[in-house]
Amino acid sequence: MNSVSPQNFPVQGFIPLPSPWVLQDGGELLGAQVFYERFGEPSPSKDNVILLFTGLSASAHAHSHPLNSARGWWEEMIGPNLALDTTRFCVLVINSLGSCFGSTGPGSIAPTSGEKYGFGFPTLRIEDIARAAQAAVSTLGIEQLYATIGMSLGGMSVLAHRLLYPSASQRLVCISGALAASSYAVATRSLQREILGRALQKPQDDLSIQQAIKWARKIGILSYIGADLLEKRFHRDQNEPYSGNASGTDFEVEGWLEHLATRFSTQFDPYSYWTLSRAMDLFSFSELNRRLYGNDSVQVGQGKALVIGVHEDLLFPLQSQAEVAATLRQAKLQVQFEQLHSAYGHDAFLAERRLFEPSLQGFLAT
Amino acid sequence: MNSVSPQNFPVQGFIPLPSPWVLQDGGELLGAQVFYERFGEPSPSKDNVILLFTGLSASAHAHSHPLNSARGWWEEMIGPNLALDTTRFCVLVINSLGSCFGSTGPGSIAPTSGEKYGFGFPTLRIEDIARAAQAAVSTLGIEQLYATIGMSLGGMSVLAHRLLYPSASQRLVCISGALAASSYAVATRSLQREILGRALQKPQDDLSIQQAIKWARKIGILSYIGADLLEKRFHRDQNEPYSGNASGTDFEVEGWLEHLATRFSTQFDPYSYWTLSRAMDLFSFSELNRRLYGNDSVQVGQGKALVIGVHEDLLFPLQSQAEVAATLRQAKLQVQFEQLHSAYGHDAFLAERRLFEPSLQGFLAT
Repeated sequence: MNSVSPQNFPVQGFIPLPSPWVLQDGGELLGAQVFYERFGEPSPSKDNVILLFTGLSASAHAHSHPLNSARGWWEEMIGPNLALDTTRFCVLVINSLGSCFGSTGPGSIAPTSGEKYGFGFPTLRIEDIARAAQAAVSTLGIEQLYATIGMSLGGMSVLAHRLLYPSASQRLVCISGALAASSYAVATRSLQREILGRALQKPQDDLSIQQAIKWARKIGILSYIGADLLEKRFHRDQNEPYSGNASGTDFEVEGWLEHLATRFSTQFDPYSYWTLSRAMDLFSFSELNRRLYGNDSVQVGQGKALVIGVHEDLLFPLQSQAEVAATLRQAKLQVQFEQLHSAYGHDAFLAERRLFEPSLQGFLAT
Repeated sequence: MNSVSPQNFPVQGFIPLPSPWVLQDGGELLGAQVFYERFGEPSPSKDNVILLFTGLSASAHAHSHPLNSARGWWEEMIGPNLALDTTRFCVLVINSLGSCFGSTGPGSIAPTSGEKYGFGFPTLRIEDIARAAQAAVSTLGIEQLYATIGMSLGGMSVLAHRLLYPSASQRLVCISGALAASSYAVATRSLQREILGRALQKPQDDLSIQQAIKWARKIGILSYIGADLLEKRFHRDQNEPYSGNASGTDFEVEGWLEHLATRFSTQFDPYSYWTLSRAMDLFSFSELNRRLYGNDSVQVGQGKALVIGVHEDLLFPLQSQAEVAATLRQAKLQVQFEQLHSAYGHDAFLAERRLFEPSLQGFLAT
């Protein structure tokens, strides 16, 4: 695929970043790029574009389209007359810088060495994801975004984007995001990175990279999912005699975790997982504001914000959403704060998309 | 120390179990024993003994005493005029069969091989812990217990003990226990056992047993502790440049987890951890009742029960306590159900002991 320009806005494509691309912490990338997909047509003046930032593990493929008919991760939310209405909006999804689905990340080949970056990839921050996305938006000739939306890591990206470019969009939607990771989130994610990092530093027969990312992912899933949901879904049945699991048991819930973790280990670059996970823990809205503006007075321009959280979310608890809402309100944005209930916990925005539809639809319509 | 008999009831001692000791799933132990400590004096008729079952990682040392002046794990709960009033009661704590603080467990030397049992230790169930404790009680010449009390794994042990010996005690207290582990608890514990089991099966340089039990313990701690508590306790400060953690970060909460996990790895036998963790997941009150009595009509004799749970407990959620209370009530016990709030979550019975004092004191007084 050729690179994309303002005159050339196909449904998906690679967008080169200026080279060298200097990251916030000082590292540099040569010949970096991001990959995007779009759903819905841009208007002639390109004033109908919604920039959608993703969670840690998602690609730009939020919806099926002519060049890729596979179902997307927000298939039920994007489309004609759906929450993100493609008869009206052009939804632009950019694979996060540092990820592994088309955008440059630690799994990419470093042009200087001809080998994968791996741990040689410079420290990545949420701000770098936001900056790369905005560079792509500029390359596509979009002067003003209709809205920014993001969930989880993407919710942090939306907030970083707002501080960096206060006038780029009149509307922002932060779903299950945070001004900074909670101590519980840092604890559970840093443990995942510790296990994975040990394997990446020196893989052994008994701690292969694949084994380590599976364990990391299982810990992750147990922090995303609601305990009540597991209780409803799984029985206590287990195979007897047990199949040889190192756990000494073979409960249904174990098989389910193993299945999800195995699938993830074949799809996601382990260095990308480590890098994006760390970026979430390093993010601090207040530090970024201070670095950009020299004081604690939050600079987010004008406009409207929709903040959505889920009571049952352990990883990005409702308290974090309340802090996002309060901070944006204090900075004079017009804030709508939605508190949902879902047994899916942090996974709700993927698993119970329809819960989010009414408030999103209403917010974007006005 | 010599073995203990009805005539000889010192403050601590080893009690031999009948040999061979046949476990519920058919395995046998030769020359097995349990270790106990007691706090307060038994009455002449030994009718004032409270049998206290512990959580997974606790020893019998619940309180300091003349032979061991170290603080016990329930130091503030046991003593003159405290919740477990030693002017009135003799509190008997028996290290669980399968543990590693005096009682026979997988870290013990198997008499037939002269080597550690390790994975050669037969399958252990909660019922086996209850049966070994009751055997010790009999050896000590105690015909009727004043009460049984247990928390977490010990709460399950209390329930198993009640089914096995419905008339052994008029009173039972189940703190943060369950009729069976929740799917979330099975998931998080089986993951710990998977990691630890892999190392125990074939330790390598990069996945030493010590590393594996540390990771297992960290996952465990994240399921015990309340997220709100972590948030209150830890700052986001981290050392820069980072100290070389494989996580790529060095937040305070990481150092705290590392400290706790390292300490645990030097104190607890890894095979015992694996074995007791599995026993919790295998426990099913209803299955045990059916095995013992041939039908689903719960046989728990007569008397009173106090069931205590904590709203913020993820591992043994309040719903589990409600099920314990309802089941015992339906079986015609007189049930008092206490629902507490504590940011410590499942750790509350250790960290905020005083919360439990009023209801315990009142329940035991009558």
